[in-house]
Amino acid sequence: MVKSFLFLFIFLVLSKTVISARSKSSKSQPKPCKNFVLYYHDIMFGVDDVQNATSAAVTNPPGLGNFKFGKLVIFDDPITTDKNYQSEPVARAQGFYFYDMKNDYNAWFAYTLVFNSTQHKGTLNIMGADLMMEKSRDLSVVGGTGDFFMSRGIVTFETDTFEGAKYFRVKMNIKLYECY
Amino acid sequence: MVKSFLFLFIFLVLSKTVISARSKSSKSQPKPCKNFVLYYHDIMFGVDDVQNATSAAVTNPPGLGNFKFGKLVIFDDPITTDKNYQSEPVARAQGFYFYDMKNDYNAWFAYTLVFNSTQHKGTLNIMGADLMMEKSRDLSVVGGTGDFFMSRGIVTFETDTFEGAKYFRVKMNIKLYECY
Amino acid sequence: MVKSFLFLFIFLVLSKTVISARSKSSKSQPKPCKNFVLYYHDIMFGVDDVQNATSAAVTNPPGLGNFKFGKLVIFDDPITTDKNYQSEPVARAQGFYFYDMKNDYNAWFAYTLVFNSTQHKGTLNIMGADLMMEKSRDLSVVGGTGDFFMSRGIVTFETDTFEGAKYFRVKMNIKLYECY
Repeated sequence: MVKSFLFLFIFLVLSKTVISARSKSSKSQPKPCKNFVLYYHDIMFGVDDVQNATSAAVTNPPGLGNFKFGKLVIFDDPITTDKNYQSEPVARAQGFYFYDMKNDYNAWFAYTLVFNSTQHKGTLNIMGADLMMEKSRDLSVVGGTGDFFMSRGIVTFETDTFEGAKYFRVKMNIKLYECY
Repeated sequence: MVKSFLFLFIFLVLSKTVISARSKSSKSQPKPCKNFVLYYHDIMFGVDDVQNATSAAVTNPPGLGNFKFGKLVIFDDPITTDKNYQSEPVARAQGFYFYDMKNDYNAWFAYTLVFNSTQHKGTLNIMGADLMMEKSRDLSVVGGTGDFFMSRGIVTFETDTFEGAKYFRVKMNIKLYECY
Repeated sequence: MVKSFLFLFIFLVLSKTVISARSKSSKSQPKPCKNFVLYYHDIMFGVDDVQNATSAAVTNPPGLGNFKFGKLVIFDDPITTDKNYQSEPVARAQGFYFYDMKNDYNAWFAYTLVFNSTQHKGTLNIMGADLMMEKSRDLSVVGGTGDFFMSRGIVTFETDTFEGAKYFRVKMNIKLYECY
């Protein structure tokens, strides 16, 4: 009896150690609790017309370099699950970006993904640097509401296409590491 | 002796299981660790005068629709516990909002609640979409300092009144789910 | 045998209680998991020239008071470990600030620290009020990527020097309380 209890106890202590070790290793290389890929489509007013446009510049670059430093764009852009900007949007991206480098193209984003589909209702709030010269770059999901209540995570941006000043598309890989 | 020890052990293991189960269920429908309602008062410069005004537009809408798309407003607005904007403020809301929809009124906020009362000292940092067509909408509390050290949560906005371009009041229900 | 086992068990239970108590007390007065001091250098375009400047105003103050209310500045500022703005930067601060008070100098910041040194790669995303009249003030680290994956914490600002409209330097004490 005592012996079997001792075995049980040692087993429990060991298994707990194993679990702790695993959760520690999963902490350094965690798996997302939610993960999905979306496409962001930005269609610029002034280049395109009111009918099509989903974003507009609200400041003029003050002349610090030749890469639009200081141009601030406000947007209400469609978010789709495929690359076609005319597909039924699963969300809107509402927020702004601006260019912020004098010797290359570089941007900074803060926005909300507003979901209103059969699959998801709620929002994700996102901010971070868009280091455009890098193939992929990470921004922070800093909060969420509704289906994404209190979420946190990472959004990885990859520029999918860039058609002059008129249109660009970004692949957004959304990985949530804190879910409720 | 061995027996009583065994009971103790089983009791401890069981009680731990119960606690785990409870914390899991409270995670899916959590109760706020702090909860309070505040009123935000926005008095627009240009419509009202320097003496009274607490916010000002810094960009002109570029003409994408008829709902002020692209108008960006910076504010240092009083926060009160009742609906009277002349009550002694318990905090200031410092930050900005902008309109971002071409076919309806819709906004996006990022701001800090700066508390400096006998009850609270510290700040709460907030961002998110203000979906004005909905009766209530949720933004994220993404951080806090002082009495609100490292807090996270949700702010639920409800428009309380809207007096043309001059003044509006928003009821902010602040629910913190992570407190230290 | 049973006795020694009992001692072991009681020791384990007690030590766990002690650890829990410590982590609880460390929660109310926590120690950062990472802590470092950096200097932020802002060199304004229009006062300084394109060659030197690292920031530029993109809006004009609309006239609400005499303290630059509504002036919004976009920056890509060097971050160094000492006070010399010509030292090799360990990071860039990319983002914006604006002035937001009609009767004193006061500002609001949102930006990303982009690290690209041998020591650190990754980003920290920061937002909050810069209460310039106070000697030190706290902003929130709301997220991080790369080496700072999912970090949260506090940045304490202290104005280190202010040379008119041309240059200012802020000491940033970065304290992370959530690390992965």
